[in-house]
Amino acid sequence: MLDQIKIVLVNTTNSGNIGAAARAMKNMGITQLVLVDPIAVIDGDAIVRASGASEILDSCIIVSSLDEAVADCGLVIGTSARGRHIPWPLCSPRECGAKARQAVANNNSVALVFGRESRGLTNEELHKCNAHVHIPTNPDFSSLNIAAAVQVMCYEMRMSALESESAEAGESAEAGEGCANKWGVEWDYELAPHGDLERFFDHLKDSLVDIGFLDPNTPKQLMTRLRRMFQRTGLDTMEVSMMRGILAAVQRKAKVANDIDKNGKNEG
Amino acid sequence: MLDQIKIVLVNTTNSGNIGAAARAMKNMGITQLVLVDPIAVIDGDAIVRASGASEILDSCIIVSSLDEAVADCGLVIGTSARGRHIPWPLCSPRECGAKARQAVANNNSVALVFGRESRGLTNEELHKCNAHVHIPTNPDFSSLNIAAAVQVMCYEMRMSALESESAEAGESAEAGEGCANKWGVEWDYELAPHGDLERFFDHLKDSLVDIGFLDPNTPKQLMTRLRRMFQRTGLDTMEVSMMRGILAAVQRKAKVANDIDKNGKNEG
Repeated sequence: MLDQIKIVLVNTTNSGNIGAAARAMKNMGITQLVLVDPIAVIDGDAIVRASGASEILDSCIIVSSLDEAVADCGLVIGTSARGRHIPWPLCSPRECGAKARQAVANNNSVALVFGRESRGLTNEELHKCNAHVHIPTNPDFSSLNIAAAVQVMCYEMRMSALESESAEAGESAEAGEGCANKWGVEWDYELAPHGDLERFFDHLKDSLVDIGFLDPNTPKQLMTRLRRMFQRTGLDTMEVSMMRGILAAVQRKAKVANDIDKNGKNEG
Repeated sequence: MLDQIKIVLVNTTNSGNIGAAARAMKNMGITQLVLVDPIAVIDGDAIVRASGASEILDSCIIVSSLDEAVADCGLVIGTSARGRHIPWPLCSPRECGAKARQAVANNNSVALVFGRESRGLTNEELHKCNAHVHIPTNPDFSSLNIAAAVQVMCYEMRMSALESESAEAGESAEAGEGCANKWGVEWDYELAPHGDLERFFDHLKDSLVDIGFLDPNTPKQLMTRLRRMFQRTGLDTMEVSMMRGILAAVQRKAKVANDIDKNGKNEG
């Protein structure tokens, strides 16, 4: 599992922190380091702090954007302080270990993304992530050193990998498989009730017929797959309204286009 | 619970490590630091690395022996590499958190003891401990920086304290409340890699502009909300293809309708 996990540091300003992060990674058996547009260079201080893990520095990859860093990853987890404007699915480091294990078991690569020493990741960067992880810190002193954050996350990755090994050896490896409120933060809207969801699916189906993507006579698995996709998400009421607004706009365009079609006005 | 736990550093040689340990402690809500016969003094480097946790350095206690440091503690746990001559009760950091919680619940103070940067604790010192803790490291690179070890242990103390609080609040304190692969079954397609998702979001955005739902000049939070919705789902490769097929069909209709609009053919 650990060889499918990469550590991504964005705009790191202190070279010692890069070295200390490399050491923390190697201690926990993680070797892929990606630096996104680093401010610091890998200098003597980085090598001293890496203390025997300098081959991780030697083999680290430097890229210019977060997109590039995580392009091949099925699961991208960004470290975040609490209190973003719009809540995003949030997990603890331990849950993150379970999530990563599952992703790797399904043949995905995983990226753990750490932001700037001064101000973390931007909202735009955080919005590129599948989930956020918050290391539970003292609310009065919450700013972790970046290498310390890397240490905690890599430790949880290793613990999860070891649990997975024990599980394969036939022992119990129960660890955070459940999801209750899977978001772990107070959400801004309630989940849409079932009836609203069903009306949304009806609306979706009609719209797909209108745009000629769904043939009601041979529907195949299309609606099933769409249902599965939206239902496992847990749509909130705001999201259902938004999606229905989009469908209404789609239908207006489709109606114009289809009327034209019917009247034969768009020949040539 | 955390106010009953002290961190004891024996013969520390690097002042920066003392500072970094203090920061790690404060981040996790632990404030009592005891230095046993330190080689390093608390200097500027210690204060820089403490980065806002210097009151822990100010109030730390310096003693001349380990016995003195842990005299009032009901539970003394020493950090240890594997393979001591005489086996000793050994726990993982996580088990250590549970042990500490139990001890504090029974009105005991707890000490976590960390040895020298170069060679850890002596056998004699380890034998003064109730239990040993081994942080599971890469066997090929097992020497953790002392502040990193303090970070991991204090993190587990905090996690245990938070679990204890949730338990007291009558909530489920099961480790994994969150996310794992929430699907719990073997999936039929792999997760879409990050790059494919980004292309999907670009396509989605263009389509929303085409149907007149998104004004690129006043986008508001629309794309952020859509990103959040799709990213927390974890789209698989098949779903991304399906969604892009739908978007392409939407765009075809929109193009017909918009062309008509432009040419003024749909008046009435």
